[in-house]
Amino acid sequence: MIYYSRSGNTRQMAQLITEAMNQAGLKTDCKSVSEVKADEVLDYDAIVIGSPTYYGQMAASLKKLIDDMVKWHGKLDGKVGAAFSSSANIAGGNETTILGIIEAMLINGMIVQGDPQGDHYGPVSINEPDARVIEQCRRRGQRIAKLTLKLFP
Amino acid sequence: MIYYSRSGNTRQMAQLITEAMNQAGLKTDCKSVSEVKADEVLDYDAIVIGSPTYYGQMAASLKKLIDDMVKWHGKLDGKVGAAFSSSANIAGGNETTILGIIEAMLINGMIVQGDPQGDHYGPVSINEPDARVIEQCRRRGQRIAKLTLKLFP
Amino acid sequence: MIYYSRSGNTRQMAQLITEAMNQAGLKTDCKSVSEVKADEVLDYDAIVIGSPTYYGQMAASLKKLIDDMVKWHGKLDGKVGAAFSSSANIAGGNETTILGIIEAMLINGMIVQGDPQGDHYGPVSINEPDARVIEQCRRRGQRIAKLTLKLFP
Amino acid sequence: MIYYSRSGNTRQMAQLITEAMNQAGLKTDCKSVSEVKADEVLDYDAIVIGSPTYYGQMAASLKKLIDDMVKWHGKLDGKVGAAFSSSANIAGGNETTILGIIEAMLINGMIVQGDPQGDHYGPVSINEPDARVIEQCRRRGQRIAKLTLKLFP
Repeated sequence: MIYYSRSGNTRQMAQLITEAMNQAGLKTDCKSVSEVKADEVLDYDAIVIGSPTYYGQMAASLKKLIDDMVKWHGKLDGKVGAAFSSSANIAGGNETTILGIIEAMLINGMIVQGDPQGDHYGPVSINEPDARVIEQCRRRGQRIAKLTLKLFP
Repeated sequence: MIYYSRSGNTRQMAQLITEAMNQAGLKTDCKSVSEVKADEVLDYDAIVIGSPTYYGQMAASLKKLIDDMVKWHGKLDGKVGAAFSSSANIAGGNETTILGIIEAMLINGMIVQGDPQGDHYGPVSINEPDARVIEQCRRRGQRIAKLTLKLFP
Repeated sequence: MIYYSRSGNTRQMAQLITEAMNQAGLKTDCKSVSEVKADEVLDYDAIVIGSPTYYGQMAASLKKLIDDMVKWHGKLDGKVGAAFSSSANIAGGNETTILGIIEAMLINGMIVQGDPQGDHYGPVSINEPDARVIEQCRRRGQRIAKLTLKLFP
Repeated sequence: MIYYSRSGNTRQMAQLITEAMNQAGLKTDCKSVSEVKADEVLDYDAIVIGSPTYYGQMAASLKKLIDDMVKWHGKLDGKVGAAFSSSANIAGGNETTILGIIEAMLINGMIVQGDPQGDHYGPVSINEPDARVIEQCRRRGQRIAKLTLKLFP
């Protein structure tokens, strides 16, 4: 679980998803992008990335981590990926932020699952997480854990 | 202004945007996709398309109209385009629905403008339009009219 | 495997991917969208959809099938999905066509994997499949089969 | 004209588009992102951004410039925007790279036009620019200049 957060909203979502993943039986760490070294990403079976919605795409510091990982291109093939975002507005670029992260994951050969309920591509909070968002984060964490444990028993 | 609406939410948005465009001095018609003949689309300087969010893309009946217009490919070059959507959920595929329409417009050579405030790519209603959506539709209608009158004085 | 094809290029890709899936041990049928009944889609563990690039999105007839499947919304949750496209031009809307299909799959809760080599989101043919495309289709078919057999042993 | 280039392919495209814009009567500067100060962007009527395709989105250094410009949010409203990309592969993420830039432009309220011929969203070079790409860059430069001169006579 890697996130960038300035206001704390994205961090709060990261913690909720991490908690749900741990509860579902998948040991999960939760780190700010500034704490992540590019090579330790390879140790995980699932990578979840959260970003505030900055001009419809992930924050530059997260994009830098992804660009830096090019030296291990191919090594994330088959790992599970997921994304989420916090945003100031409904329709403010949150879906494109999540899909930008998902696209980078697909280019790495990663495996991504949607959700037929609610925030289909990944959880979105409009400003601070409310009851709806908390539920979406819990649900998503469980789903990510379930898929990961199926693929990496 | 071309829309598809089953519940009436997209139609209501279409009417709000049309009204704002007319008030801003751009004579605008508002038609359901079932009333539109592909050749009459060529008569307009601006084309605004609204769709409910169906699996993250415009409704099939709108896509059919766009596919059918291939016989006039190139004739929409330089016209103004804009899009909007109504959706059941926040983060439910509304941005990708709007962007799918915008992508089809760009492929036709059309001119599209975003909005630095609120619903950046195009107005989105979560279920029935509320005060926020009404304001976004009015604002967007004015902006579309302003750009169109600048390009087609 | 569901495809729409007018010129035959998308059909040829569909056959190549189907063949590779069968060879990799996953029994796979290959059908034109006109032969597919919406309810039989539920019988499969993996669904692969191919479309020509029409205005940056899947052909209307494929979108209609997806829209029609709303009556079983939730029943594709956990199935494997993949997409491919044939296009007239490089940068002619083929990636957005594939991603539009992938977005619909994610909204259904489906599981999608990218490829770290070549056509990352899904195979793309510029006009008739050449040696590069044939290789991409074979490779993708193998990968889809491998993931499906892992999830549905 | 702002670009990031490591191999020189994106720079070559930038120079071709700049040349065509100047020839079409719009005085255009061509700068690497490392030479651009965020405040000077405000002086231009049109902003064209080129990036290599890095994991399906613009390079982190370009995203950083866009993120940094948030302090002038709203001041790009009504300016003309365009994007282009160089990529290692067909279907290698070049369209999503261009659309990611266009999305950021729309969020700034900018005006973007597609092209009904060739590389619809923006010019794409697969590796070094060939005759096709040179023609696409020239054509795009002329179109950007024409639209800008119409909006800012």
